[in-house]
Amino acid sequence: MKIAVIGASGTIGRAVVELLGNDHEIVTLGANSGDIRIDIRSRESVKTAFEQMGKVDAIINAVGELAFKPFGELNDEDWYVGIESKLLGQVRVTEEAVNYLNDGGSVTLTTGIISDTPIACGSSATAINGAVESYAKAAAIEAPRGIRINVVSPAMLEESKDTYGAFFPGFFAIPAKDVAQFYKRAVMGLETGKTLKCFAGNPV
Amino acid sequence: MKIAVIGASGTIGRAVVELLGNDHEIVTLGANSGDIRIDIRSRESVKTAFEQMGKVDAIINAVGELAFKPFGELNDEDWYVGIESKLLGQVRVTEEAVNYLNDGGSVTLTTGIISDTPIACGSSATAINGAVESYAKAAAIEAPRGIRINVVSPAMLEESKDTYGAFFPGFFAIPAKDVAQFYKRAVMGLETGKTLKCFAGNPV
Ligand SMILES: NC(=O)c1ccc[n+]([C@@H]2O[C@H](COP(=O)([O-])OP(=O)(O)OC[C@H]3O[C@@H](n4cnc5c(N)ncnc54)[C@H](OP(=O)(O)O)[C@@H]3O)[C@@H](O)[C@H]2O)c1
Ligand SMILES: NC(=O)c1ccc[n+]([C@@H]2O[C@H](COP(=O)([O-])OP(=O)(O)OC[C@H]3O[C@@H](n4cnc5c(N)ncnc54)[C@H](OP(=O)(O)O)[C@@H]3O)[C@@H](O)[C@H]2O)c1
Repeated sequence: MKIAVIGASGTIGRAVVELLGNDHEIVTLGANSGDIRIDIRSRESVKTAFEQMGKVDAIINAVGELAFKPFGELNDEDWYVGIESKLLGQVRVTEEAVNYLNDGGSVTLTTGIISDTPIACGSSATAINGAVESYAKAAAIEAPRGIRINVVSPAMLEESKDTYGAFFPGFFAIPAKDVAQFYKRAVMGLETGKTLKCFAGNPV
Repeated sequence: MKIAVIGASGTIGRAVVELLGNDHEIVTLGANSGDIRIDIRSRESVKTAFEQMGKVDAIINAVGELAFKPFGELNDEDWYVGIESKLLGQVRVTEEAVNYLNDGGSVTLTTGIISDTPIACGSSATAINGAVESYAKAAAIEAPRGIRINVVSPAMLEESKDTYGAFFPGFFAIPAKDVAQFYKRAVMGLETGKTLKCFAGNPV
């Protein structure tokens, strides 16, 4: 397969490239790195990047910013961070991907455990992640030519404990290499419209 | 109780006012009608309207636009319809409501059955409704002074069959007066962070 990974230089992206790169041809995309430059906050940028990329069998998106602030301190601008990046960024990738995926290809998006387990400062993040998971469920039934659309929802990564640990007190962390397996399942499996939850040790 | 109903002139809003008006003092808000004018697409408008309204015990929002188009025909502008109205509109109402609700007060938002049952042309609508339901779940755990936040998710209303029937083939409809009962439950009950699903005859 030819597989495009958006956010290939990231903590998750690197693990995905490492796992899938053994058996597949990988095209890497990123904001400041990779084979092709892309900014998922702009539909024009997504279109231009996919035009450079050409036809592939799978597109994985491991990019998406969110704003974390206490309820009551969030303003519209904070909300637009997640909306433009993690929600509409992934929507744009999905909607434009269809023109560059071979029949039976797949799109795999990324959310996170806070869709299921709300945390302090997480109301915008939970809402945006919830939107993406609902989106995949709905877009999947309309996607043409057997194209599948799924989501991977990781718990906090072991590699990101220093960055996110304070937001997830008592949560178990999962190594990036285990999270990568869920992306493999989404790409190689036949399910569609699903959210694959990487919650090792984190029953919700 | 003193209860504010945003969208009081609408199909759902009218039924809610009729049911709750028997036992409570109602303040009606709307874009072009009601005691107070409000546009939930603008945070300034929400703030100004709530300043006029003063303290209440419950705020019900029965307003929210969505774009319905086939997957592949949706563009960013279509997405912003639901984002500005049904998602951020309800977020703004919730975030600002906290300053005008008495202790133990409640916010009740509105989604719809397509959060659970995707339909043709519904990918944006399902995503946005999913965001609102996830939002309530997360915001509820952070809300101060015992303030509760819930969502009512109605099936297609009998009164709206002519407008929406073609989008919901084979779905059962529910009368507005039955939907109003779910808002009463959200206002008078003690649950929080929940989505009350009015799916009479519509198991999902
Ligand atoms: N890390 C965790 O613990 C964890 C857990 C659950 C969910 N997640 C989610 O998984 C996703 C990836 O997380 P991560 O920790 O792997 O991220 P990361 O290490 O911060 O890497 C971010 C990646 O995204 C790219 N990128 C940033 N902004 C972009 C934009 N606007 N358009 C296109 N690419 C952009 C970066 O490219 P350049 O390097 O080229 O700039 C980089 O490859 C995020 O949505 C995050 O919320 C992460
Ligand atoms: N009807 C259904 O079958 C059904 C089923 C499930 C879910 N829902 C959802 O329930 C909500 C209400 O539906 P409905 O059918 O009752 O609506 P509706 O009959 O079309 O009434 C809309 C109400 O919202 C007000 N409004 C419109 N734009 C506004 C804005 N920007 N800011 C503040 N108020 C605004 C209108 O005020 P004015 O009259 O003063 O202009 C009116 O009171 C919608 O979110 C809808 O998606 C409806």
